Amino acid sequence: MKIARFSHGDTIAFGIVDEEEDELVVLKADPMFAGYEPTGERVPLGEVKLLAPVIPRSKIVAVGKNYREHAAEMGGEAPAEPLLFLKPNTSVIGPGEPIVLPVQSDRVEHEGEVAVVIGRIAKHVAEADAANVIFGYTIANDVTARDLQQRDGQWTRAKGFDTFCPLGPVIDTDLDLEGGTIEASVNGERRQEGRLADMVHSIPAIVAYASSVFTLLPGDVILTGTPAGVGPIVDGDTVEVTVSGLGTLSNPVRGPR
Amino acid sequence: MKIARFSHGDTIAFGIVDEEEDELVVLKADPMFAGYEPTGERVPLGEVKLLAPVIPRSKIVAVGKNYREHAAEMGGEAPAEPLLFLKPNTSVIGPGEPIVLPVQSDRVEHEGEVAVVIGRIAKHVAEADAANVIFGYTIANDVTARDLQQRDGQWTRAKGFDTFCPLGPVIDTDLDLEGGTIEASVNGERRQEGRLADMVHSIPAIVAYASSVFTLLPGDVILTGTPAGVGPIVDGDTVEVTVSGLGTLSNPVRGPR
Repeated sequence: MKIARFSHGDTIAFGIVDEEEDELVVLKADPMFAGYEPTGERVPLGEVKLLAPVIPRSKIVAVGKNYREHAAEMGGEAPAEPLLFLKPNTSVIGPGEPIVLPVQSDRVEHEGEVAVVIGRIAKHVAEADAANVIFGYTIANDVTARDLQQRDGQWTRAKGFDTFCPLGPVIDTDLDLEGGTIEASVNGERRQEGRLADMVHSIPAIVAYASSVFTLLPGDVILTGTPAGVGPIVDGDTVEVTVSGLGTLSNPVRGPR
Repeated sequence: MKIARFSHGDTIAFGIVDEEEDELVVLKADPMFAGYEPTGERVPLGEVKLLAPVIPRSKIVAVGKNYREHAAEMGGEAPAEPLLFLKPNTSVIGPGEPIVLPVQSDRVEHEGEVAVVIGRIAKHVAEADAANVIFGYTIANDVTARDLQQRDGQWTRAKGFDTFCPLGPVIDTDLDLEGGTIEASVNGERRQEGRLADMVHSIPAIVAYASSVFTLLPGDVILTGTPAGVGPIVDGDTVEVTVSGLGTLSNPVRGPR
């Protein structure tokens, strides 16, 4: 099942995507907290603007170097334990919204990723129970100012600028972790490509590990790492990240400003 | 003026501290958003439990190595620009609540700090205008698992565990940046000591710098770095951080668990 958050006229609402009819079944409230109660209204998908499907109230946790070939292109090995970092919720934008290049950087890069959306309070969750605390999956672009990442050592600034965390287009409550694929393209040219089964640390392992450090809260988002092929984006580009089954997250690039 | 957030019976509320009467002037709502409207009620300070005076909805930004002698004891120099990192809001606890040592670490240390509480939406704020976006100041303990900080490289895990960000006891809307002092003690023995004027990057400079990266939101908290003298804390210890004018933030230490 695919859940969208959208604006339609003056209203912001959640809906279930009816892919056969290209419509949204409008819900009374955020299904993560209120369940799936329809208002009775249906809206054509073509008439709405999709928004980031979740705005984390607590954390965006991300995992560095979680595909071996990407770790290699960054000049290192994949760490034995998940390497965690945080992105602020002020970096979140929705599908179609521009990634704005900051004046402080000369090299901003795309990093297409699968994002896990947490649905329940979770602390010290066993790997085998991770599925119970996951609400669903969406697509993320872990936009990174590569020059600042290298200069600062800590990745907070390089990955934390406003607009540096596109999320969407929808949350799918299912994802094929075994057979799934991810790719990212710039202006229609494929740059990144990976199989979800090639993650060094699996999604259940990441959820268990993160929950051994932080209490995970409903609405927290976990970015699960990017495959090889990261590269620069510049003013006027369009970046698209596609995950099989989840659709495509597309964002234009503007700036620097 | 000092603002407290407190529980009294079943109620959680905000109040203005009346230091002469040892009472709280109870407010109708969070003064950061609703102004200073009293309910007419007054409560003796001795009858309430003080809580963390703010729970950030977006970010806790922190600055590394912002006192020269602490940078030296960590084996380095103070960076030319503020070195930013994030702590999650799930790490926040209030005065008197226990810091819980995690089983993953063999060496957890105290880092007493001044914390800035942001009161207005702020992006690209000039240093000269920083005071306009500051709601007030409180005390923080940037608790750090020193072994994990060194092992991980990224500081997120080492500084992000639940209970690793004690805040309080109150927010003071004023702070003497020129003549102020900070110290931290463990079981009554002084360990850290510094003058706020010795910060490498001043509070207005840090606010300006952070706002050039992220949009700062009301309730965001900025930790401004710790002076020299950090050291380990163990089960049964009590850590106290004192900032002149702001009072003392005291927390017991429990664990590991």
